[in-house]
Amino acid sequence: MNFASDNTGPVHPAIMKALADANTGYTPSYGADPLMEEVTARLRDIFEAPEAAVYLVATGTAANCLGLACLTPPTHTIFCSPTAHIHEDECNGPEFYTGGAKLTLVGTEDKMTPDALRNAIGAEGTRGVHGPQRGPVSITQVTERGQVHTLDELKALAAVARDNDLPVHMDGARFGNALVSTNCTPADMTWRLGVDVLSFGGTKNGCMGVEAVILFDPEKAWEFELRRKRGAHLFSKHRYLSAQMAAYLRDDLWRATARQANASMARLTEGLAALPGTRFEFPPDANMTFVNLPRAAVKPLRAAGAQFGIYRGDPEGADPQAEILIRLVTDWSVTPDHIDSFLTVARG
Amino acid sequence: MNFASDNTGPVHPAIMKALADANTGYTPSYGADPLMEEVTARLRDIFEAPEAAVYLVATGTAANCLGLACLTPPTHTIFCSPTAHIHEDECNGPEFYTGGAKLTLVGTEDKMTPDALRNAIGAEGTRGVHGPQRGPVSITQVTERGQVHTLDELKALAAVARDNDLPVHMDGARFGNALVSTNCTPADMTWRLGVDVLSFGGTKNGCMGVEAVILFDPEKAWEFELRRKRGAHLFSKHRYLSAQMAAYLRDDLWRATARQANASMARLTEGLAALPGTRFEFPPDANMTFVNLPRAAVKPLRAAGAQFGIYRGDPEGADPQAEILIRLVTDWSVTPDHIDSFLTVARG
Amino acid sequence: MNFASDNTGPVHPAIMKALADANTGYTPSYGADPLMEEVTARLRDIFEAPEAAVYLVATGTAANCLGLACLTPPTHTIFCSPTAHIHEDECNGPEFYTGGAKLTLVGTEDKMTPDALRNAIGAEGTRGVHGPQRGPVSITQVTERGQVHTLDELKALAAVARDNDLPVHMDGARFGNALVSTNCTPADMTWRLGVDVLSFGGTKNGCMGVEAVILFDPEKAWEFELRRKRGAHLFSKHRYLSAQMAAYLRDDLWRATARQANASMARLTEGLAALPGTRFEFPPDANMTFVNLPRAAVKPLRAAGAQFGIYRGDPEGADPQAEILIRLVTDWSVTPDHIDSFLTVARG
Amino acid sequence: MNFASDNTGPVHPAIMKALADANTGYTPSYGADPLMEEVTARLRDIFEAPEAAVYLVATGTAANCLGLACLTPPTHTIFCSPTAHIHEDECNGPEFYTGGAKLTLVGTEDKMTPDALRNAIGAEGTRGVHGPQRGPVSITQVTERGQVHTLDELKALAAVARDNDLPVHMDGARFGNALVSTNCTPADMTWRLGVDVLSFGGTKNGCMGVEAVILFDPEKAWEFELRRKRGAHLFSKHRYLSAQMAAYLRDDLWRATARQANASMARLTEGLAALPGTRFEFPPDANMTFVNLPRAAVKPLRAAGAQFGIYRGDPEGADPQAEILIRLVTDWSVTPDHIDSFLTVARG
Repeated sequence: MNFASDNTGPVHPAIMKALADANTGYTPSYGADPLMEEVTARLRDIFEAPEAAVYLVATGTAANCLGLACLTPPTHTIFCSPTAHIHEDECNGPEFYTGGAKLTLVGTEDKMTPDALRNAIGAEGTRGVHGPQRGPVSITQVTERGQVHTLDELKALAAVARDNDLPVHMDGARFGNALVSTNCTPADMTWRLGVDVLSFGGTKNGCMGVEAVILFDPEKAWEFELRRKRGAHLFSKHRYLSAQMAAYLRDDLWRATARQANASMARLTEGLAALPGTRFEFPPDANMTFVNLPRAAVKPLRAAGAQFGIYRGDPEGADPQAEILIRLVTDWSVTPDHIDSFLTVARG
Repeated sequence: MNFASDNTGPVHPAIMKALADANTGYTPSYGADPLMEEVTARLRDIFEAPEAAVYLVATGTAANCLGLACLTPPTHTIFCSPTAHIHEDECNGPEFYTGGAKLTLVGTEDKMTPDALRNAIGAEGTRGVHGPQRGPVSITQVTERGQVHTLDELKALAAVARDNDLPVHMDGARFGNALVSTNCTPADMTWRLGVDVLSFGGTKNGCMGVEAVILFDPEKAWEFELRRKRGAHLFSKHRYLSAQMAAYLRDDLWRATARQANASMARLTEGLAALPGTRFEFPPDANMTFVNLPRAAVKPLRAAGAQFGIYRGDPEGADPQAEILIRLVTDWSVTPDHIDSFLTVARG
Repeated sequence: MNFASDNTGPVHPAIMKALADANTGYTPSYGADPLMEEVTARLRDIFEAPEAAVYLVATGTAANCLGLACLTPPTHTIFCSPTAHIHEDECNGPEFYTGGAKLTLVGTEDKMTPDALRNAIGAEGTRGVHGPQRGPVSITQVTERGQVHTLDELKALAAVARDNDLPVHMDGARFGNALVSTNCTPADMTWRLGVDVLSFGGTKNGCMGVEAVILFDPEKAWEFELRRKRGAHLFSKHRYLSAQMAAYLRDDLWRATARQANASMARLTEGLAALPGTRFEFPPDANMTFVNLPRAAVKPLRAAGAQFGIYRGDPEGADPQAEILIRLVTDWSVTPDHIDSFLTVARG
Repeated sequence: MNFASDNTGPVHPAIMKALADANTGYTPSYGADPLMEEVTARLRDIFEAPEAAVYLVATGTAANCLGLACLTPPTHTIFCSPTAHIHEDECNGPEFYTGGAKLTLVGTEDKMTPDALRNAIGAEGTRGVHGPQRGPVSITQVTERGQVHTLDELKALAAVARDNDLPVHMDGARFGNALVSTNCTPADMTWRLGVDVLSFGGTKNGCMGVEAVILFDPEKAWEFELRRKRGAHLFSKHRYLSAQMAAYLRDDLWRATARQANASMARLTEGLAALPGTRFEFPPDANMTFVNLPRAAVKPLRAAGAQFGIYRGDPEGADPQAEILIRLVTDWSVTPDHIDSFLTVARG
């Protein structure tokens, strides 16, 4: 019963097998391996973007920071949600990689609204040389609270960016989960609506540690390569990044694992919704939910060893009806049994 | 016949097995996994350093840059060999991670000499607030030209650092190869003579992608953790770094693979020494050599598909006696057959 | 009728005379001039801080950025008002000088409240290594909207910082205006209540271009000197910075010019308050006000060549009663005539 | 008898007068003052560069660092002399402002030679993404050892840069001294031979503290403005920078003060050359010399209170014939009397 994160579970067997298969003989290092050619071709194909530049790194933070650094001069600011991973969970990584750019928090909601974005952009553009300059808009899809932007929502945000001549970055650490939830094409969810650079996540969705950065406009490809090397993110034995990503893309494994994770979350939230006192903070669109449960449900779950994050409230307090806000995440490996055991304990 | 680098070969089967073994069930992320406890305990034991702080990252450049950043304020300079990896092959990574510190190249030799180091330190200390301030001394062991410093050489360099109250960093990307060549203890080669921070390499010696950073004085441990996260080098699925390093240390695998790589180099250089016209740039102490071969030997090697780096001279020119400077590296996986085939072709 | 800023007026004659007086013979450069000794002694005396380290730079942004850089590791965040100069008007200077630290905006008001500060600090401290770490609290006194914190307000903010073991920075670009408004001692307004580093402004209050940075705890003095030099803010002909500051401090000129500027603002706001339709955004405590005037007053002022900033509304629109938000600043050189002319035009 | 530097003497009376003249009434801040228009027009005229972008800062280090930052991505390296001010005397300022670029020291001489430059550029371009990338060539004219490059020398260096598609920066902290020594036009010594960005010094040649940065190609003008503001080098009361530079350029004052300083150095070195035991390190082309004098001359000079830098040797030792290497600099204000007194003492 581990719902702590989608990084606590095991690597998908097909990925492990691909690593083992790749482990033979000699191959050029630093990204010149043949498997990387497969990865590039496959991602260009999936995204219908034959010119796109594609690179691999091992962490989502690296993908975000390096991608943003190519879009953001140090005197500029990045517009993002106050709950964005780049703001909350990268320990000033974007500030580091951009050389000191700022992050402007847009509104107070998990999902940026076009109005809030327009206002934020407007407010940042009034001080000439004195204030930070307007830089990229960064959208997190799936958000860090588990919400998936609809295509219309994405288009509206991208339109605001375009109206202001600003590039768009997408943090897609859970891109697969968003895509299968939205049921559109990868191209529709990215460059067709104006995304310039995408962090395409693998780690949270069954890989060991690999993320692709896709630059739909390859103009900054060489700059990206230099920044990746300087940031110490260029792997010498690169084939083991390539092998993971190649297996992840083959036979649509990435969609399958995402579907499985989302389905697990649906089963879990359906069960929780039936519990008296359950209150969801957000509609759980993908594989993560922030949900308030009565303490009477949370306490026995903890006693039974269930793993999850606690965001508000003391689970060990007195009043059994008190709301405890917890985060639940399902990765590809969660089974119906895990979920049903969890629900059984929660029901008391 | 691939002698291009020690990062072109496969991962040792014991490491692969450890990854597979680790791939079960749920485990805390970001370094809180039980295998990391094993790694820390084992490295403290191996280095006879029960207080040391131990961290894992995936690349040697990350290990060097993060370790140096903890020792070097941005207004200071790092003393290193002109052939040091941190100077030549990290695309300004140390400058980036330190926030803009300088690297002062010591002398003109691959191995720094105590005199050259003393002079360099002296020269950097004469301009008060105007010049860069004296920072750490960084020693590469094995050097980037394949030389191993003797214990006495290390002691002499460390003594110069200590006389000037400067900390010492060791780039040990090939620490195992140096250790088995020197035949001393890990403690003797590091903190006992004054090393403060060590990059302890795994990737080049049989791992997939893992390096340990050892802070013998744990005072900067938390700063290191913050810098690692900010640099995007903290792995979410950290158990797969831990598993590699744990297997690498178990049963002294790391010494065994290093011994094997060094023995391969010995066999190779012995064979080459017997060729007329061979001239070694440096004594090959570990698993790498820079050697001049007559073009008459190099040309057929390339024709036969042998892989190696060319550092000086045009292998496809006319004069068969012209010297071509090549680099040969042997990793743990090289077999006597590989070597003998290479020598056979070289002999013509 | 120039109320655009306190940096559009002339330098006080006593400062100009001091520059002329200093312009004789040879003197050591880079801060080793005898006048700097006078400045240090005088500021230590004024602030009752005999150990304080004192440095001069030429711009307020430099004073803030260098002071904050000594208090803020690059993985940390600075707590400040959303209207703080360091956030709005330094083009990412603090991010640059700290090496990429973040600024956390506290609440939504011009003056931070203790509750908002406590909440902001609390929110930043919950993500361990993943989020930015808690760094200094920066208080702007006078605020960028013209408000002066009372001593009690300052104490309450500093207490929150102290409760969380955070240092306190004060942006005192208009320190003199705040002091004469508050009627306390410089020590009371700074180190006695917990300020660690102060930007003590000169430029806006009659100098040509000089600000003092006072480190009440001199521990970081040398680090400051290195950062100042690296930032290119160490003047070779330093005596001309010293001469300005020495004259500014002599005979309490700084208090006199501040009193004069504040008195001008009082005369101006008294006159404006009598106009129908005037609405002040904030109580004008020092020498700056943000005030809404009916368009019928603003339009003729502009036609008459009066200089001031327009912050909201179109002064050239139709409805004569529409509110236009303007900023008015009085420096030491403004005369009653200037003010009365302005009021006459505004009255229509 | 102060020959310590050209920053220890007074400001030229014409500059002081211009400051006093500028000190009247109100004027827009941050560079929008009318005097700045005069400066821009005048410098474009002097340099025959009607499109050039012109900016003022207060220190030579700021001019160099900001100019170089516009030419140098953080993954690149700057080629310069080992004696360059940007390397020796800016406390890692260029590394800071570029975001962590490297400086590659060219050869071992004070003046770079074309061969040494070609070799250095060649050596830096062989490691692809692993090594720093080739960035600008920075030439110091006058060098930090007092040498003036001839036009032919400059052309030869610039040609090497151009052959490698690298931009050229010139540190002209003593540009005036070089120009009157070379007797060519400002355009000939800069953009006509390939200089892209020039630091045009004022401070050392009679100003209080002002340097112009001239971007002959204005494409990076806005980037420069942002970097200047972010670096805290944009003056609010900018008219006092403009006034200095305007007066400096009016009636060719800058050439007159440079001529005077150079003439003083000629008188001084002529006198020294007649002393037995004098040995010049370099031909003194402008207003600075590094010269070895016998201790028997140095000792009484120090006793008489003469100010100058000592670079090698202990002036208070025993052997009267021992060589002491000293630096002598003459600014515009040195009189024949100063020089003759110095020579008289030196003669014993």
